[in-house]
Amino acid sequence: MSSKNTRTHTLILMPSGRRGQVEHGQTLLEAARQLGVEIESICGGRQTCDKCRVHVEDGEFTKHGIASSDSHLSSPTDTELAQLEKMGATDQRLSCAARVEGDLLITVPEESRAQKQIIRKTATQRTIEIAPAVRQVYVEVDQAQLGFHRGDWGRLQDALAEQWDIHDLAIDIHALRRLQPTLRQGDWKVTVTLWNDHEVIDVQPGYQEGAYGLAVDVGSTTVASYLCDLRTGELLATESVMNPQVSYGEDLMSRISYTTERADGLEKMNAAIIDALNKLARRAARSAKIARQQIYEISLVGNTTMVHILLNISPKEIGGAPFALANRDAMDVKARELGLKLHPGANAHILSAEAGHVGADNVGVLLAEQPHHQEGIILTVDVGTNAEIVLSSPDWMYSASSPTGPAFEGGQITAGMRAAPGAIERVRIDPETKAPRFRVIGDEHWSDEWLIGNNIPADQQPKHLAGGICGSGIIEVVAELYLAGLLTPDGRFNPKVDCASMQWDQDKRKGAYILATAQQSSTGKPVLITQNDVRAIQLAKAALYAGAKILMMRSGIQSVDKIILAGAFGSYIDPKHAMVVGLIPDCSLEKVYPVGNAAGDGARIALLNRDKRLEAGDISRQVRYIETAVDPDFQEEFVNAMHLPHRSDPYPHLEDILPKEKPAPSMGRGRRRQRKQAA
Amino acid sequence: MSSKNTRTHTLILMPSGRRGQVEHGQTLLEAARQLGVEIESICGGRQTCDKCRVHVEDGEFTKHGIASSDSHLSSPTDTELAQLEKMGATDQRLSCAARVEGDLLITVPEESRAQKQIIRKTATQRTIEIAPAVRQVYVEVDQAQLGFHRGDWGRLQDALAEQWDIHDLAIDIHALRRLQPTLRQGDWKVTVTLWNDHEVIDVQPGYQEGAYGLAVDVGSTTVASYLCDLRTGELLATESVMNPQVSYGEDLMSRISYTTERADGLEKMNAAIIDALNKLARRAARSAKIARQQIYEISLVGNTTMVHILLNISPKEIGGAPFALANRDAMDVKARELGLKLHPGANAHILSAEAGHVGADNVGVLLAEQPHHQEGIILTVDVGTNAEIVLSSPDWMYSASSPTGPAFEGGQITAGMRAAPGAIERVRIDPETKAPRFRVIGDEHWSDEWLIGNNIPADQQPKHLAGGICGSGIIEVVAELYLAGLLTPDGRFNPKVDCASMQWDQDKRKGAYILATAQQSSTGKPVLITQNDVRAIQLAKAALYAGAKILMMRSGIQSVDKIILAGAFGSYIDPKHAMVVGLIPDCSLEKVYPVGNAAGDGARIALLNRDKRLEAGDISRQVRYIETAVDPDFQEEFVNAMHLPHRSDPYPHLEDILPKEKPAPSMGRGRRRQRKQAA
Repeated sequence: MSSKNTRTHTLILMPSGRRGQVEHGQTLLEAARQLGVEIESICGGRQTCDKCRVHVEDGEFTKHGIASSDSHLSSPTDTELAQLEKMGATDQRLSCAARVEGDLLITVPEESRAQKQIIRKTATQRTIEIAPAVRQVYVEVDQAQLGFHRGDWGRLQDALAEQWDIHDLAIDIHALRRLQPTLRQGDWKVTVTLWNDHEVIDVQPGYQEGAYGLAVDVGSTTVASYLCDLRTGELLATESVMNPQVSYGEDLMSRISYTTERADGLEKMNAAIIDALNKLARRAARSAKIARQQIYEISLVGNTTMVHILLNISPKEIGGAPFALANRDAMDVKARELGLKLHPGANAHILSAEAGHVGADNVGVLLAEQPHHQEGIILTVDVGTNAEIVLSSPDWMYSASSPTGPAFEGGQITAGMRAAPGAIERVRIDPETKAPRFRVIGDEHWSDEWLIGNNIPADQQPKHLAGGICGSGIIEVVAELYLAGLLTPDGRFNPKVDCASMQWDQDKRKGAYILATAQQSSTGKPVLITQNDVRAIQLAKAALYAGAKILMMRSGIQSVDKIILAGAFGSYIDPKHAMVVGLIPDCSLEKVYPVGNAAGDGARIALLNRDKRLEAGDISRQVRYIETAVDPDFQEEFVNAMHLPHRSDPYPHLEDILPKEKPAPSMGRGRRRQRKQAA
Repeated sequence: MSSKNTRTHTLILMPSGRRGQVEHGQTLLEAARQLGVEIESICGGRQTCDKCRVHVEDGEFTKHGIASSDSHLSSPTDTELAQLEKMGATDQRLSCAARVEGDLLITVPEESRAQKQIIRKTATQRTIEIAPAVRQVYVEVDQAQLGFHRGDWGRLQDALAEQWDIHDLAIDIHALRRLQPTLRQGDWKVTVTLWNDHEVIDVQPGYQEGAYGLAVDVGSTTVASYLCDLRTGELLATESVMNPQVSYGEDLMSRISYTTERADGLEKMNAAIIDALNKLARRAARSAKIARQQIYEISLVGNTTMVHILLNISPKEIGGAPFALANRDAMDVKARELGLKLHPGANAHILSAEAGHVGADNVGVLLAEQPHHQEGIILTVDVGTNAEIVLSSPDWMYSASSPTGPAFEGGQITAGMRAAPGAIERVRIDPETKAPRFRVIGDEHWSDEWLIGNNIPADQQPKHLAGGICGSGIIEVVAELYLAGLLTPDGRFNPKVDCASMQWDQDKRKGAYILATAQQSSTGKPVLITQNDVRAIQLAKAALYAGAKILMMRSGIQSVDKIILAGAFGSYIDPKHAMVVGLIPDCSLEKVYPVGNAAGDGARIALLNRDKRLEAGDISRQVRYIETAVDPDFQEEFVNAMHLPHRSDPYPHLEDILPKEKPAPSMGRGRRRQRKQAA
């Protein structure tokens, strides 16, 4: 096609397969860019950063095919060779140094591609381009000399404009304080850390790399953090702690009350969460073997109350109608202003919220799961102490919040406990004998395989006896009790069913189910499921269901095509049992996707891609929030949803497994019609 | 011209005399604006702020002239009347309320004009428009209600956009924290304090006024502050303190050394100046009867070392060639980040500098004095521990810095003291008898009128005996000694002159002049002027003169048309004596202007007008800094300038008063020529 005698050569770049004619003598970096393939380069072509390495597959395209040779590239200089040897990569070339001197077939390895991506496998698989707010560039600055009075910061700005085309910069006062010694220490070669291509937040001597970010989901109960490499997007550490505010109140309302009833309430709770965030940053940094000062940005999601408290803003107004937020929009504030001990120039980005009771955590879920960019009607539910519910189609999104309370997390349940070793997480009840078997966290054996007793060697006994029951176990036991006929559709223990696992009081009015015997229990007392426990689950699931139902009614749809279950609880529950209980409306079981901590994923996405922050803002403005609690239909829907799985809504996908006994026909709609006529 | 039956009327606005046709029913505020007369209004026409009061001079223009009547305005409403009564201004009208219903002649009093000005009387008189970075506006915000999820900050932004056309705002985290309670306390009516129409830095309930700013000149020896009303420009308080860094070193070099030689040197000196600034703010606020938290901005000038230290940036690089600044440009940084205790949202604006040794203080002088916008060749000198010298024409500006040392401030002088009560500030020596008379600060009587002794009643004795001699006194005594023939042109005491006021050692080699007798002195010992004292003044004035001379040589000019003496020292010295000593080059005495603390004035101007900040930046880029110390001619000029008043440069304006004895002709130029030929 071409020869060394002509001015152009053929360049083929793998794996993209891009090809084209490039000029003789161009660097591979320039040539690839011309063909639309961006190769990473932090040092700007100074053979320092080693980020632009490529494999030379072949040179010389002959009539007979491709003959192996790399003589079609300029010979490596000593600098390049030294750099490649240092990296143990002598079979590669630096694309900023190697010049095209003939036809070439080049492979750009994943790590050298400028447009890095992470792939998120969830309800749908998608890729997120790595384009964070923080980036590092290497510059060579003009040395200060007599007669030039621009100032060192001016000289650095000139260098950044000339070498990186970055203009109109500000500099953080902390970076300015370090500027002069750093320039001299690095012999006027420095690595600059930029925020949003707008502010210099750090200057380090010479060529340096290592910019990290922390994404955090501030839950009422659990604070989860994800430490990421801001250049590659790689997840380096995941750390979580209990939210220490739990000691000031389990649910949001009690925390809000704590801030309004005590003069130092806000101050204390703010200090508690900032402490926790600092602890997470320290732990994550330690586990990834980096310094905490290398964390240049933190992105935060959380419910509105958590976000207000962490910003040291009183959540008082969220506690009562009209539930006004101090700020719904995204915020950027210096992390040091919040008391966070990261890099002194680090930014804290707080994602936007939707409404008084649907916060940045839900925006994070939507950013991560993108239900509105998927086909069909999708119900997205994030279950925690509050449940956030979003119903969406490609054309609209409605959101609501339901106060499900702590039952799904084991709270207000007689034997409830958090998901920890020994907690019962799986339950099966034999439809014939009504006898239970279960599995606890930390032991793969079902309880009916357990060998317990003085004559059993210790290593054959279960690793953990049953200490209680966690959220997913509670859903399963209620579902199984109902499927076995032990619970009637209205959630009462059925006195007509006689079985060894039931305990009844004298007049058979108050029953309890023995899930684990005294022998199977770590406390020596049986683990019981009481009528009150079932009621607590009914109340919680009815609140959630009724919220979803109001959204369905408002958008005029009868059924959903897909259900996304976000949050830790949503990940551990079995979709079938959730549906049997009536936690979620009917849906094909294969179309129910537990997606884990999607709120945290959203925080991570916003950390790694600054365009996604704008998208988050769009989402928060697009979602139409429905105040379900004041909806005239809510009470009726709530009452109907108390039934197992529901008083009137059909569950065709459960037809084969639900008990045949039909509940009494719903009186709800009739009553409502009467009320409306009376009004 | 018009009548009530037509749709327009004639409106004449005094004192501007603007006139035109305006629509029937318009408010006076709107009508005046249409005619190009801006009347102040903080409340946006809600009859709350009382800032738009006008006098109604006449209505009804008849053929015979103007008939007095104000029936051509709508009748005042109860609200307006109540407001006017409250202000004791029932003879006026609120222009936001009164509507035009006929021809009118209106006077807009000074205080109601939106474009306020302050007038600066200095070398030239000029006015400065009041247009500060900080302004306050009153807004009425939509109340939060169910179903509207914009957030309170969003609602405030909407109100500011709609009622004041202010967009794209950020909010300081401290203001955001107070936003919700403030909106409710003010019943959704609030006064918003804006910085640069870009950031909300305060929100107060209801209608409030009172935004103040502090302009500060951070001198090596004295820190002077000016508290201003940011709405009217009024100067409310002037306070100054000694720079407490003096205890770490008198001059700049010793302070720089202190920061480089001690690990905690910078930290200590930074804490000292921040403390001093806080003290000044507290004092100024107290004296103006305002709260320190009402100070919303501080503007700062100072030499480059002072500015570096107050920003907590090491001044190390300024201490040695090439004298690199960390930053030459203007800076805005939250005052709280510097440890300043003003309003928590207050900004600190630091003016730009020129070069390593010519700082923001000199930019302040140029901003205040505008020598480059005046006719002719002007020498501007700001004398402190360092002297900053600017030579300018309408087409160019050159600047230089000369290390004059502390002699002009009384340092390194045997009887030197700061300008305080008892310091000798004026000196006259009788040309015949060679006897001195003097005046001390704090007593208007010359010493030859003093009555001292046991038989004199206490109230007839001088208020202060002589405690020492201050800067202006030193210049005068040296000049008078020279004029009286007691000093030879090379600065030695003349042994040939015999007089009672001279003390000589045995071989008449070491002389001293008795300026005040033991009886006139508060110490009981005579106040002496020694040979060393004269030498110190010669060295200081030679450094200053040589700097100015190099600038004159570089710009190819022979003489200056005007001399501006800035700084406290420059204000107190007598121009004639300064010229006799040879501190400044020859100039008509009426063209020498002492202008006081022009650097502080520059800080005040930048505080009151944000466009002036841009102008300051232009100035700092326009001035061409000349490193005089490394100029090959400097040494020679310095040596020549050691003479009184100068070895070779003529002083035609002093012809009548200088001693006729001519100094030996200069060898300087000849020597230099020889050196050049040898090279």
